Amino acid sequence: MIRVGLIGFGTVGTGVVKILFENGNIIKRRTGFEVVLKKIADLDIERDRGLGFELPKDMLTTNAEEVINDPEIDIVVELIGGIEPAKTFILEAMERGKSVVTANKKLLAESGEEIFEKAAEKNVEIGFEASVGGGIPIIKVVKESLVGNRIKKIYGILNGTANYILTKMSVEGTDYHSALRDAQEKGFAEADPTLDVKGIDAAHKLTILAQLGFGVKFPFSEMYREGIDRIMPIDIEFSREFGYTVKLLCIAKDDGNLEARVHPTLVPSHHMLSKVDWELNAIYVEGDAVGETLFYGRGAGMMPTGSAVVGDIVDVARNIKNKALGRVPVLSFVRLDTVKLKPMEELVTPYYIRFQAVDKPGVLSKISGILGAKGISISQVIQKGRGERGVPIVMITHEAREKDLMDALEEIGKLDVVLEKPFYIRIEGFNE
Amino acid sequence: MIRVGLIGFGTVGTGVVKILFENGNIIKRRTGFEVVLKKIADLDIERDRGLGFELPKDMLTTNAEEVINDPEIDIVVELIGGIEPAKTFILEAMERGKSVVTANKKLLAESGEEIFEKAAEKNVEIGFEASVGGGIPIIKVVKESLVGNRIKKIYGILNGTANYILTKMSVEGTDYHSALRDAQEKGFAEADPTLDVKGIDAAHKLTILAQLGFGVKFPFSEMYREGIDRIMPIDIEFSREFGYTVKLLCIAKDDGNLEARVHPTLVPSHHMLSKVDWELNAIYVEGDAVGETLFYGRGAGMMPTGSAVVGDIVDVARNIKNKALGRVPVLSFVRLDTVKLKPMEELVTPYYIRFQAVDKPGVLSKISGILGAKGISISQVIQKGRGERGVPIVMITHEAREKDLMDALEEIGKLDVVLEKPFYIRIEGFNE
Repeated sequence: MIRVGLIGFGTVGTGVVKILFENGNIIKRRTGFEVVLKKIADLDIERDRGLGFELPKDMLTTNAEEVINDPEIDIVVELIGGIEPAKTFILEAMERGKSVVTANKKLLAESGEEIFEKAAEKNVEIGFEASVGGGIPIIKVVKESLVGNRIKKIYGILNGTANYILTKMSVEGTDYHSALRDAQEKGFAEADPTLDVKGIDAAHKLTILAQLGFGVKFPFSEMYREGIDRIMPIDIEFSREFGYTVKLLCIAKDDGNLEARVHPTLVPSHHMLSKVDWELNAIYVEGDAVGETLFYGRGAGMMPTGSAVVGDIVDVARNIKNKALGRVPVLSFVRLDTVKLKPMEELVTPYYIRFQAVDKPGVLSKISGILGAKGISISQVIQKGRGERGVPIVMITHEAREKDLMDALEEIGKLDVVLEKPFYIRIEGFNE
Repeated sequence: MIRVGLIGFGTVGTGVVKILFENGNIIKRRTGFEVVLKKIADLDIERDRGLGFELPKDMLTTNAEEVINDPEIDIVVELIGGIEPAKTFILEAMERGKSVVTANKKLLAESGEEIFEKAAEKNVEIGFEASVGGGIPIIKVVKESLVGNRIKKIYGILNGTANYILTKMSVEGTDYHSALRDAQEKGFAEADPTLDVKGIDAAHKLTILAQLGFGVKFPFSEMYREGIDRIMPIDIEFSREFGYTVKLLCIAKDDGNLEARVHPTLVPSHHMLSKVDWELNAIYVEGDAVGETLFYGRGAGMMPTGSAVVGDIVDVARNIKNKALGRVPVLSFVRLDTVKLKPMEELVTPYYIRFQAVDKPGVLSKISGILGAKGISISQVIQKGRGERGVPIVMITHEAREKDLMDALEEIGKLDVVLEKPFYIRIEGFNE
């Protein structure tokens, strides 16, 4: 019998409790042993979680130390999120020789090093499948199944809130703010959506995935991230005409100098990633042997994330049973190399650009002249409609260096025929 | 150091050798130990496999016993395929205490029981990730990551040849025979395509997946399978008008009575599975906790399948290193229940039906009258075009019992206004 203690009885915690109780017989039929929940700590132990069954009264405590210090508990599951006190709880549990399972992407991405070092020092495990992609088993896939591959590229749609909003805008033509309100009403966005719509949550997840995939470490703060809050319905509409879908895409590629970035991205409409709609998530991994793979499912929610937590609990439990703790290195590689990410200025990619300009002859020639002088060539242009505040001119460039594009856009922005700061979205072609 | 012996130096074997040599440093950086190929047995040891590097001369042998009997070899990789002599080699290797990795779906589906029993008896492992979905890590996902789930449904596009042919027919409007020839020219179909186009290969794979997912066993021969060779371009065209895509779909569902079947199926065009084109494969798994998941990638080929074999080799190697053989039960459950599959006659599903009828008033009314008398109601009908041999009438039914449909179609086939045996394709709605 393996005993589990839970800290944090919120949405995901409730999912974990439901699965351990309702599917306990399945887990036993699959493992040959019992995984038993012994104690749950939460500040609120009164609220009805709608479990549909009664928990023994003495299972609940408001004191996390009762979980951490219980000598019978083998695995501590941390589901309170955020940096503190989660970090202290995890380090204390490890100090007492317990393995840990967590869904805490922020903690692992921003401040994981100390935790990973402690796990190695104490020879305990830390499972974090639930921290990336909810129920999608991407962590185990990258750490174990693809072990024979040199990973070349990882792309992810890793924030369900942002993807829901962009899908809503795309399907119904609504603007960003209405789509956000709809997401909030449906429970797919929080009252303060900053972490989701600004790409911060997605960047946490990409930081973790990039470490595991490429065997490297870099400070989270170095990763470029940009939100979806400046995307207009017109961008989605024009992108579609060009054959693209707008997604908040996590991108990590290693061509000798690791690129890792999160921003709105035009994805070719025929690509599987462009079919990932609403709150769903997906991760596309390209390995030198396996080629292209895609993993798709629910990236959040009580039961999907609970499924990932329970998968980790059983994984750790099997290692405890077999005295095989540390069977797979925590971060997929025995040692991570410290790297510097490629600066965004050096990025080379095609761009979508939207200008708002006065409707006069010669404007397009001025704009394309400045782009051309920076060596940026145009692949497609659309100019249509006619508004009070000028016309939108939208174009797709061939591959360009980001620094050159920024310089050109600054210059173009100063033209008196250009009415607004030019807006651009990076394009991912996938066919390099 | 873990030593590997390979039996079968064909396409996949070559991929495994390439990965172990070219990515040996990556594998070592990830595991902390070396995985070394010691011996390769094949009847042909002269042919140039285009490795791009030289193998030591004494590594090759024409005698498989030299691999099986080598006391230094920890893991035997069987990649010759078919029942014999593969089965004997595997049993002999296990008898000598060696773990085995194989891609042999036919052997495991048709005659796996003896092998799985021997593995348990000798406490060795048998890895078979490469037997289903090529490079897609579906076996590990079902056995480990989804361990907390009661699996409800598994759907797979598991035969790249059939999927290539159907995609070719769909995109270019070609008929089955031209599409097959194209697949053969491009290397996606063999000279004798029977196993692929008749659904036998897909049924082998579904047999393995259903065992792992539902914890049950049943004779392979009991599984219903039907090929794609009677699909006509007109079926693909009409299906598209109804909002569906035709796929050779593997289906396994457990609602208390396991259904497992492989046949051409209409999949809603908005579903992720309908986007899986050409030679690509995908598996859709629905668990009670995780909800819907999809795993997509290359289901065959030297390097993708090699990736799965190497993943298994490392998995077993880690268990050997940690003295944790048997860490995860070979078939995902400690014990499988023997079940009887639901008879096809009891299947309840919507159907696509194509009739070839004379172009006269009252024909549709006769057909729908017979269907109605069996309790089968029609959801949509298309009748168009006009040929020398009558007109096609194509319809989608609401859910019907297969027995009732068969009875109705037999009766309709006897009408003198109906010119050919009615043709039907089952529909999967996914929204039950």
